[in-house]
Amino acid sequence: MKDIQSSPADVSIAIDRVGIKSLRLPLTVKDREHGSQHTVAEVDLAVDLPAQFKGTHMSRFVEALEGWKAGLDYQGFKELVADVRERLEAQNAHVTMRFPYFMRRSSPASGAVSNMDYACTVQGDLVGQRFSMTLGVEVPVMTVCPCSLAISDQGAHSQRTVVRARCRFKGFMWLEELIAMAEGAGSSPVYSLLKREDEKHVTEAAFANPCFVEDVVRGVAKALEEHPRVTWYSVDVESFESIHNHCAVAGIERTKG
Amino acid sequence: MKDIQSSPADVSIAIDRVGIKSLRLPLTVKDREHGSQHTVAEVDLAVDLPAQFKGTHMSRFVEALEGWKAGLDYQGFKELVADVRERLEAQNAHVTMRFPYFMRRSSPASGAVSNMDYACTVQGDLVGQRFSMTLGVEVPVMTVCPCSLAISDQGAHSQRTVVRARCRFKGFMWLEELIAMAEGAGSSPVYSLLKREDEKHVTEAAFANPCFVEDVVRGVAKALEEHPRVTWYSVDVESFESIHNHCAVAGIERTKG
Amino acid sequence: MKDIQSSPADVSIAIDRVGIKSLRLPLTVKDREHGSQHTVAEVDLAVDLPAQFKGTHMSRFVEALEGWKAGLDYQGFKELVADVRERLEAQNAHVTMRFPYFMRRSSPASGAVSNMDYACTVQGDLVGQRFSMTLGVEVPVMTVCPCSLAISDQGAHSQRTVVRARCRFKGFMWLEELIAMAEGAGSSPVYSLLKREDEKHVTEAAFANPCFVEDVVRGVAKALEEHPRVTWYSVDVESFESIHNHCAVAGIERTKG
Amino acid sequence: MKDIQSSPADVSIAIDRVGIKSLRLPLTVKDREHGSQHTVAEVDLAVDLPAQFKGTHMSRFVEALEGWKAGLDYQGFKELVADVRERLEAQNAHVTMRFPYFMRRSSPASGAVSNMDYACTVQGDLVGQRFSMTLGVEVPVMTVCPCSLAISDQGAHSQRTVVRARCRFKGFMWLEELIAMAEGAGSSPVYSLLKREDEKHVTEAAFANPCFVEDVVRGVAKALEEHPRVTWYSVDVESFESIHNHCAVAGIERTKG
Repeated sequence: MKDIQSSPADVSIAIDRVGIKSLRLPLTVKDREHGSQHTVAEVDLAVDLPAQFKGTHMSRFVEALEGWKAGLDYQGFKELVADVRERLEAQNAHVTMRFPYFMRRSSPASGAVSNMDYACTVQGDLVGQRFSMTLGVEVPVMTVCPCSLAISDQGAHSQRTVVRARCRFKGFMWLEELIAMAEGAGSSPVYSLLKREDEKHVTEAAFANPCFVEDVVRGVAKALEEHPRVTWYSVDVESFESIHNHCAVAGIERTKG
Repeated sequence: MKDIQSSPADVSIAIDRVGIKSLRLPLTVKDREHGSQHTVAEVDLAVDLPAQFKGTHMSRFVEALEGWKAGLDYQGFKELVADVRERLEAQNAHVTMRFPYFMRRSSPASGAVSNMDYACTVQGDLVGQRFSMTLGVEVPVMTVCPCSLAISDQGAHSQRTVVRARCRFKGFMWLEELIAMAEGAGSSPVYSLLKREDEKHVTEAAFANPCFVEDVVRGVAKALEEHPRVTWYSVDVESFESIHNHCAVAGIERTKG
Repeated sequence: MKDIQSSPADVSIAIDRVGIKSLRLPLTVKDREHGSQHTVAEVDLAVDLPAQFKGTHMSRFVEALEGWKAGLDYQGFKELVADVRERLEAQNAHVTMRFPYFMRRSSPASGAVSNMDYACTVQGDLVGQRFSMTLGVEVPVMTVCPCSLAISDQGAHSQRTVVRARCRFKGFMWLEELIAMAEGAGSSPVYSLLKREDEKHVTEAAFANPCFVEDVVRGVAKALEEHPRVTWYSVDVESFESIHNHCAVAGIERTKG
Repeated sequence: MKDIQSSPADVSIAIDRVGIKSLRLPLTVKDREHGSQHTVAEVDLAVDLPAQFKGTHMSRFVEALEGWKAGLDYQGFKELVADVRERLEAQNAHVTMRFPYFMRRSSPASGAVSNMDYACTVQGDLVGQRFSMTLGVEVPVMTVCPCSLAISDQGAHSQRTVVRARCRFKGFMWLEELIAMAEGAGSSPVYSLLKREDEKHVTEAAFANPCFVEDVVRGVAKALEEHPRVTWYSVDVESFESIHNHCAVAGIERTKG
């Protein structure tokens, strides 16, 4: 059968990225507490395509995933990205996996244990000789508004706020480390299971620690600045303001050193 | 050219609804304050199909919309639904339009004026001789948790909460009436523009009026029960709990009389 | 601490459903081929609330999930719904779980094996003495337009089409059975991994079997009508028309017998 | 009342962007054919914040929008971005508006006229003395697979494909120009209203012009390369493959000159 993809391109322009998007698969991820956990990922895979070729061979991306037996840790992921590049005969390869990641959390007063889920991302880029891995987490926190608290006779508006933090680093890093940095920067963490004494504790702790989106984004940035292995980071905070129908946002991106 | 749609069906089963979904169009909606307003709608149109016909003629739905010159009020909308049924030679016809609807709102202390947007729905069902219209609104409010307020030494968690109310009625009804019923049932309305004195006012008013999703859904249901023209309603409330990563919900549906 | 939830309601209206929505958790589901598979679910839980009580106790829903050790099969799921009702001291209880479900599929010519994912739903309703379970699947298929094929000198437009099928039944039913009924009703199944000879096979098979959304919805309805244990079903088909920016849809719902 | 926002920051890190997101408002956009059209926008506004200040004054973003009376053209939009920067006493300001944009299109054979909608974006960045405007369009097209067409005895799979093109430019540029470049690069444009003779025409035209996502992205890139006023562009193409449950994608980004 004819290999149309390998025929010459009609328009001779190199393509930065060509590949497949939103392929779903079951995934085993390295877990600091339990060794590993089962989850489900949505995967994007791409390579570059030189100006002279009409098309890439899309089925090879799926074959690379099918052939990948490792769980999701640094070494296993790097092998996948390298294998994608080799199968596609490309210069560069890029793989991104998005998945919910679960941690068992104890409520602050009663110690009731339940699952918290975090939307995580692992991205690998192999460009020439250089492989870089980017971790990303999406962490919900609670924020109490410092302005509302200062000016009101009673109360202050609070809301769910999402911290999206991404970083690149030297050596190794746990998703749990990045989650902890994000979760520690709000007025309070959020939980799945809170008994009445926990709800009292969370409310009082949050009101003792009011913060704007500006405070949250700086808090996470500070933790990432001080982390010895982090080389680049990006933090975005989005607060679902309970007094508005729009959101408040703040963002910082830095290359360190 | 062959009319495949009119050929006999391979499987002789009547189809409840067949049509098109998510067609976008500019729309003029009747507005109580200004006469009319411009918005953008997403439209679904459908008819029934008898067991003997293979297919419906989908392009006629678009022609009906193109031929429809009226703005969105009761009479104009009914004409559209009737025209759809006639063009498609069907027994029943159904049209749903979803669109953002804007109201100018004054903030409670400074009187600063700004837009609030509400996701609205108008649905028309023509079944035999009977035409019924269903209005729907999605209204964001603020809720302060009564439990958190009662048990905490300071503060209480609050959050954005969405009220989805739908109703059928005799005669005529404004979207504004349904919005007002939903907006009045939370701890406070939300606003696009709040100056510092407004934020103080909203915070204090909300903390003076704490409510669970259960209170909100009952408040809207009570208003709809007491409304003399409403014949059926459905209310769903969803609260984006600021202490959790999940939502609290409550729902009531009733046929009156 | 005060139990605000148990205090009298301000508005004395019974609530149909009150609970929590979109709680995520890791889940083990019964799998016909491999015994079980790991996935991730989004869960809604609700109960009714009598007119006299102000609020329900939301944390008990999470405790019920935490206490639930069974995997997702009929008996284990029924136990969860019953436990929810008991913990919440309610008359009725409702639990819905939405999760991606994976099957290993062989491509039609080369036999290359890969994952296909289906968005599935299991819903359990315990109303008084009666427990009913509803299975739901979302199955992508390919459709080739019979009209376009008949009138064009060359080709015919095709597109991805989603079949959403739900059913209730006596005894037991596999998700795989419902998936097979939906997947068999399009012009061709879709696959994650297709080599060139597979792509040729799928294209030719689909063009030999053109179908409208009307044909697809009837095909699935026929299979459900003929299934001896199915007592109720609902089928919705949505086709992402490649010649339009809107979708074509068709729906049938029937209570059997 | 206390101005908490103006108090010193706890963590002395400059914030790149702080502002509000997803505020909805009615919008009038300049339209090449009819002078102007009414639509509805979702707006993000942001400024930078120096390291020493705790917070920005979020209500001023909404006041800037409320005070903005111009329709959406180059000059009017630039005034808004400059006003945001001035009100917020910032160095940089950024405004993005996302809105559906409608064009009247004639079908290719019968000449039947209907609306086509395109999701458009206008972004303005004022950084120091430099103002740059970025236009973005999202244009659905139809693609017929060249590989499937070459190897199959009959037919070829086709699907809806979305082209997302963004560009910066010298002087002025119409959304219509960018839409035309994107729409011309697929196998065929898509339409809202197609009579039978139009469907035949579209099918045959598309099958006479098969293209991969690689061909589409290069076609749009070529048009943007050749456009004399474009200085930077980014093109992303996503094809909802009708034979798979995942998408094929391709992307090119270039700074010209």
